[in-house]
Amino acid sequence: MGRVVSLLTDFGTGDGFVGTMKGVIYSISPNAKIVDLSHDIAPQDIDGASYVIARSYPYFPKGSIHVVVVDPGVGSERRIICAACDGHFFLAPDNGILSYVFDRNEEVDVVSVTESNFFLDDMSRTFHGRDIFAPVAGNLANGVSPKRLGPGIGDYNRGHVSRPEPIENGLAGSVLYIDGFGNLMTNLNNTELDGVVKAVMIFQGTELRFVSSYYEGDPGEPVVLRGSAGFLEIAVNGGNAAEMLHAKVGTSVRLFWSQY
Amino acid sequence: MGRVVSLLTDFGTGDGFVGTMKGVIYSISPNAKIVDLSHDIAPQDIDGASYVIARSYPYFPKGSIHVVVVDPGVGSERRIICAACDGHFFLAPDNGILSYVFDRNEEVDVVSVTESNFFLDDMSRTFHGRDIFAPVAGNLANGVSPKRLGPGIGDYNRGHVSRPEPIENGLAGSVLYIDGFGNLMTNLNNTELDGVVKAVMIFQGTELRFVSSYYEGDPGEPVVLRGSAGFLEIAVNGGNAAEMLHAKVGTSVRLFWSQY
Amino acid sequence: MGRVVSLLTDFGTGDGFVGTMKGVIYSISPNAKIVDLSHDIAPQDIDGASYVIARSYPYFPKGSIHVVVVDPGVGSERRIICAACDGHFFLAPDNGILSYVFDRNEEVDVVSVTESNFFLDDMSRTFHGRDIFAPVAGNLANGVSPKRLGPGIGDYNRGHVSRPEPIENGLAGSVLYIDGFGNLMTNLNNTELDGVVKAVMIFQGTELRFVSSYYEGDPGEPVVLRGSAGFLEIAVNGGNAAEMLHAKVGTSVRLFWSQY
Repeated sequence: MGRVVSLLTDFGTGDGFVGTMKGVIYSISPNAKIVDLSHDIAPQDIDGASYVIARSYPYFPKGSIHVVVVDPGVGSERRIICAACDGHFFLAPDNGILSYVFDRNEEVDVVSVTESNFFLDDMSRTFHGRDIFAPVAGNLANGVSPKRLGPGIGDYNRGHVSRPEPIENGLAGSVLYIDGFGNLMTNLNNTELDGVVKAVMIFQGTELRFVSSYYEGDPGEPVVLRGSAGFLEIAVNGGNAAEMLHAKVGTSVRLFWSQY
Repeated sequence: MGRVVSLLTDFGTGDGFVGTMKGVIYSISPNAKIVDLSHDIAPQDIDGASYVIARSYPYFPKGSIHVVVVDPGVGSERRIICAACDGHFFLAPDNGILSYVFDRNEEVDVVSVTESNFFLDDMSRTFHGRDIFAPVAGNLANGVSPKRLGPGIGDYNRGHVSRPEPIENGLAGSVLYIDGFGNLMTNLNNTELDGVVKAVMIFQGTELRFVSSYYEGDPGEPVVLRGSAGFLEIAVNGGNAAEMLHAKVGTSVRLFWSQY
Repeated sequence: MGRVVSLLTDFGTGDGFVGTMKGVIYSISPNAKIVDLSHDIAPQDIDGASYVIARSYPYFPKGSIHVVVVDPGVGSERRIICAACDGHFFLAPDNGILSYVFDRNEEVDVVSVTESNFFLDDMSRTFHGRDIFAPVAGNLANGVSPKRLGPGIGDYNRGHVSRPEPIENGLAGSVLYIDGFGNLMTNLNNTELDGVVKAVMIFQGTELRFVSSYYEGDPGEPVVLRGSAGFLEIAVNGGNAAEMLHAKVGTSVRLFWSQY
């Protein structure tokens, strides 16, 4: 019966911050089902969090509430927003962190969360995860409509993430995220290959071979494949691509749709 | 319907110890709601665990069971205690780890957990988290009264944590805990500032500026603010105070209530 | 009412992979109770995962589903198996990862998981945790019989783990796993001591003293004790045995049942 509440933060799990948020959520919504999406987003890495939530949320039940807190501006006048789209609810600071979610959905309803009746009474200036995000999420899990949280807005931030740029016969993209295995997620959508007869991917001056599974690469060979998150992904079979290629978030990659 | 059981240990999460404890709890109390508070307390850091549980438990529902296992004496004759206060239950070794919880509550009922009918049958000498703490917590989650766990005691340990000492016109405290962002939690209560016209905080020979949010500090400037855990906290806006200031747990700090 | 689903992987928790699997499981089985056993198994460490699941599963409720994904062959033709034994269900790649579980049970029923109706529709070649393991686990949690997942098989892999070898008057074993405290789990069963009048354990040319609790060792003294997982364990009271002894997974150890 209870709704799923997913939590995505850069809080880490060592200090009890996340556990405390769960205590607040259960206090308000005893039947909620709480899922840790990740708490090890690099500190203040809004792009990375935006990528992880966009790739993950479609696999949750409709009606889930996704709390995304990477929030360098905590305590400032930055807004907190609640977005409804694709049958899911998202609660986040208005710093662009939901941009990739918005990119994937045409219809989005966003409110500015201002109704302090849904916040904890005794509010700190430094831990809004506990004092605002958690209690509002608990209320959403109880079926409170986002419309009761505050006024609808249209000027929410949807630009603070990296996107590829068109170049002649192709796209200039970059590494968006590096996972724990060292695989490089680019900001190039898998769909850029749809209906394309021949594509060429250039990384660090070298053409990469397209494969369909990690194990198809030769040992030590960097390859490119359609990633499970919807973005083209650079990997090394049995190895760590990030270490082998000295790649970082932001390293550029180019995709061409024909001869170059 | 099920009660919340929070777990706070220094076990780490890599070895399956905590997961096994959850298996035991669910075997006994299928409707329990289990929350990880933290499993990355520094090995045998009783002070740190005491701080984390004291700052976190008030945000959980009344009736929650808090299992706190940092237990260098496992297998020795050290007692295990169950404390009831403020509507919560605490299960821990009797090594002072609940001291900050006791500090915040005048009425505390403590029993020595001796009734082995509530332990696992086949008990090890090395993993009481699984063999004693988990099954007792499961029984508490089922509504078993602490009085059935063993005899009431008054001589439980409440001294094994650091507290500030009075000095002329102020307090000599110390850093109690460093969180994952590098913020320094002191053992000086926020309430020491209540009704005070002018206070001065000295850290490493320098006076710190009081602010109310992290972002009010200048870049690179160490500041002090009322922490969300109820203790005064030293932070650097956008930076890591522990690294910048080479501060450690135990580094001293002084608070003066007037001119010095 | 919901069954327990435990998850044991080498995915780490930073990238949202595990959280996504939970989203899939809750989408199919809203009342499941999901437990993280560990996600920090060393990459591709099949032995280590086999050890952790074998030591942990008996503490879960009967009827639990244990999902074990350390899967270097993802995307290849390796089979996925579902094993039923001892009242528990196990879902894993057929790479020997369940060997220690099989060692402990005489009656085991295994099917090859081939029925793609239980997989996600839009299946990737790189993330079977999300696309196969999670939805099949969700169905098992709903009570679907393993027999509906695919044909029974007898040639499943049960050999890919280390086991001790007989030598004169004893056994030549090795370190199987090192836990987060640096304790060394050997592949020698505690039961090898049953009914033995005198046993001698030799590690790195030195005889170790048998004790029954960590704290019985002198400071800095390596000792051996019956581990809580059913295997003999080498530890240092208050210290890190792995660091002190420069021991690794695979370091050899010998047990003799009489004079040597």
